[in-house]
Amino acid sequence: MKQVVADAAIREVKSDMILGLGSGSTAALMIKSLADEMRSGKLQNIKGVATSFQSEVLALELNIPLIDLASVSQIDLAIDGADEVDPGFQLIKGGGACHVREKLVASKADQLLIVVDETKLVQNLNLSFPLPVEVLPNAWKQVQEVISEMKGSSTLRMATKKAGPVVTDQGNLILDVLFDDGINNPKDIEMKINNIPGVLENGLFVDLTDKVLVGKIENNTPVVYSPSRAS
Amino acid sequence: MKQVVADAAIREVKSDMILGLGSGSTAALMIKSLADEMRSGKLQNIKGVATSFQSEVLALELNIPLIDLASVSQIDLAIDGADEVDPGFQLIKGGGACHVREKLVASKADQLLIVVDETKLVQNLNLSFPLPVEVLPNAWKQVQEVISEMKGSSTLRMATKKAGPVVTDQGNLILDVLFDDGINNPKDIEMKINNIPGVLENGLFVDLTDKVLVGKIENNTPVVYSPSRAS
Amino acid sequence: MKQVVADAAIREVKSDMILGLGSGSTAALMIKSLADEMRSGKLQNIKGVATSFQSEVLALELNIPLIDLASVSQIDLAIDGADEVDPGFQLIKGGGACHVREKLVASKADQLLIVVDETKLVQNLNLSFPLPVEVLPNAWKQVQEVISEMKGSSTLRMATKKAGPVVTDQGNLILDVLFDDGINNPKDIEMKINNIPGVLENGLFVDLTDKVLVGKIENNTPVVYSPSRAS
Amino acid sequence: MKQVVADAAIREVKSDMILGLGSGSTAALMIKSLADEMRSGKLQNIKGVATSFQSEVLALELNIPLIDLASVSQIDLAIDGADEVDPGFQLIKGGGACHVREKLVASKADQLLIVVDETKLVQNLNLSFPLPVEVLPNAWKQVQEVISEMKGSSTLRMATKKAGPVVTDQGNLILDVLFDDGINNPKDIEMKINNIPGVLENGLFVDLTDKVLVGKIENNTPVVYSPSRAS
Repeated sequence: MKQVVADAAIREVKSDMILGLGSGSTAALMIKSLADEMRSGKLQNIKGVATSFQSEVLALELNIPLIDLASVSQIDLAIDGADEVDPGFQLIKGGGACHVREKLVASKADQLLIVVDETKLVQNLNLSFPLPVEVLPNAWKQVQEVISEMKGSSTLRMATKKAGPVVTDQGNLILDVLFDDGINNPKDIEMKINNIPGVLENGLFVDLTDKVLVGKIENNTPVVYSPSRAS
Repeated sequence: MKQVVADAAIREVKSDMILGLGSGSTAALMIKSLADEMRSGKLQNIKGVATSFQSEVLALELNIPLIDLASVSQIDLAIDGADEVDPGFQLIKGGGACHVREKLVASKADQLLIVVDETKLVQNLNLSFPLPVEVLPNAWKQVQEVISEMKGSSTLRMATKKAGPVVTDQGNLILDVLFDDGINNPKDIEMKINNIPGVLENGLFVDLTDKVLVGKIENNTPVVYSPSRAS
Repeated sequence: MKQVVADAAIREVKSDMILGLGSGSTAALMIKSLADEMRSGKLQNIKGVATSFQSEVLALELNIPLIDLASVSQIDLAIDGADEVDPGFQLIKGGGACHVREKLVASKADQLLIVVDETKLVQNLNLSFPLPVEVLPNAWKQVQEVISEMKGSSTLRMATKKAGPVVTDQGNLILDVLFDDGINNPKDIEMKINNIPGVLENGLFVDLTDKVLVGKIENNTPVVYSPSRAS
Repeated sequence: MKQVVADAAIREVKSDMILGLGSGSTAALMIKSLADEMRSGKLQNIKGVATSFQSEVLALELNIPLIDLASVSQIDLAIDGADEVDPGFQLIKGGGACHVREKLVASKADQLLIVVDETKLVQNLNLSFPLPVEVLPNAWKQVQEVISEMKGSSTLRMATKKAGPVVTDQGNLILDVLFDDGINNPKDIEMKINNIPGVLENGLFVDLTDKVLVGKIENNTPVVYSPSRAS
């Protein structure tokens, strides 16, 4: 099913585009489909901008030319996954702890296309999936206290292949936050959390998504559809 | 003149306090006065929390016991300098590029006492002193563009003792920003800037300051006064 | 069994010592035993220096006073675990990716006491446990090539709770290296690896260990012994 | 004079090369000459690998295509400056604090060409120019002690545009070291310093340089010559 969504995403790509290459399993399939179309000559003069170490390594293996985020002047289309999508196309991302770079790419892109399977669609954000908040190492307790005053309970994400907490590619830590009643006002919550001293970024992607492609199984067949945004 | 302000600040300190120790030249004099009072026994059982590498090294030299910001559970009083103070006690800090840690300490403190000389008092923020914004290394151009759309012109702060830009203690870069008409709504600007992807923190300290001590020369004598906050 | 080793380690501790507090499961038990002895008053005026985020959090919870590694002037005794110990007391550490800070503490300590169970004793290092090498993020492939020329095969340690590789507390990556015939000349290998551009530190601890406490099961009873060092 | 050296360096460049682009004033002139030759079509299909933020920004401005150090598989020729060059072509670099990335590029390059003016030639290294050593922030005092035992006196490099010390592009600090009798055995000193826990890299470039171009003034005219290496 992820494959049909990945293939549908590639049909949105045109030659000569600069593409944001997302992270996660569906995005990985999309990158492979992209490489196929480039090899066959269907898509020409594509350049990629990686959103994570993971998509960078994959793109290099598949010979997709990359431009550094720091030196790219424009991105035509970013294609990425999400952990939760609400009816207004507001997102939670950051299960993979790369939401800082993903948000930089999404913000810079003219269009953001989100590819998910049906399980990621929710009525209300943050009722089950925690919001990842990236914090400075020496500020995590202090941030935790402020979030607690905002009725959010949070845990420091711990690593398994190292002692202690998960460290992000920027050298920071991750607090996974669940608000008591979920997140009903993502724009407001995003600003409030980013304004807490010691917070680098959070996983809310507000008013950034232009289109969503959803995969589901219908009569034992994987199909893709594109819901319209609730206003 | 800085000395009389520093001494006045120490008179606000009581035994058994946990103190935030600020950065900059006036704060350095304050730390030295503090050490004197501790040696003489006037102030007892004081512990410090450093806001920068600079204040940490100074406190260690003067045998002031330090607690790590990460492990301190409470700060009674933080004493720090500022680059600009407006009549409502809103501040610009960050000339020394340590505003992230200074803001963590100021936010955690029960009271924030600001010590400045008269030249730091302004009617409107940011008409002459640029607002320092700490950004991720690979995001500085992108942030610069967003700030430009907000009518702010910015320059990347360059180093003199190394090639390339100044790098902060957290490993990031500094954009020094001047808005076309200065900053008239610091609360709003602070939130908007912190919400730009790639921004860690900015030098606006809003609604944090409890008291300001100002030094000036009157009849060839240095004096200190404490203005009341404009509402 | 780990408990009896931990208890034996604490018997090496005297009042007024500054102690390096190791990482890992046996070290965690040792820190708990230490806190017990401090609460009971048997050990007085102990200060700790943490070797990792993990031991720092544990010590703070147990009210063991900590000194920052950056500001400590001397460490009397460091107690830590190891992943492999050879007959000459040379070690491989770094399964938990905190070997940089552990090595700083071990080097600064007057005495290094290693606590392990019998499974960690080996005749030859690196025949089964890979040597962790901490490398700059943009240098990992280049370091991998140099290590390959030294007859070492290496893999980049990947994370499970984030996309992409494990990132260390210093913001770097880990290569896990197995040399074709293990490591027979640890002193030489340690220097050669540390001299590769892009390498911060490796997990070989050479000529640092003063004493080893080994736990084993004998007649269904856990016992501890201290082997003598092979010359 | 620097210009004639820069021009001479460009004559070593051939079309289709992947070039390491050095830092510093002479290297900057070389990058500009390179861009001229590329615009005129004399040099075609050149790609650059930057050794610093400084050379990266300059190359992007001049439209020289860049490859990331992390993803480049080979470098044909690196051209860089130096702070001291001895008769055996051993170097001290790092006045600009970018010696870590410069050393990564130099080590990866098939050929290293050094461009200097005559004042950089010395009989013995480190009699006047201090050796820059990049250290972890929490290890600088400990490293300083070890270097002191090696008869080296060192100072922490302080910044002017920020409070506290210079921070490198990797987030570390710089110790500037002078050994009592200079450095007579660079290979040995390089390994010993890199083996000190907490040291990332030092500014000695040993057995890496293939050719040196030296500028001097002769009869009021700038000339360039290439000394042979003393064996």
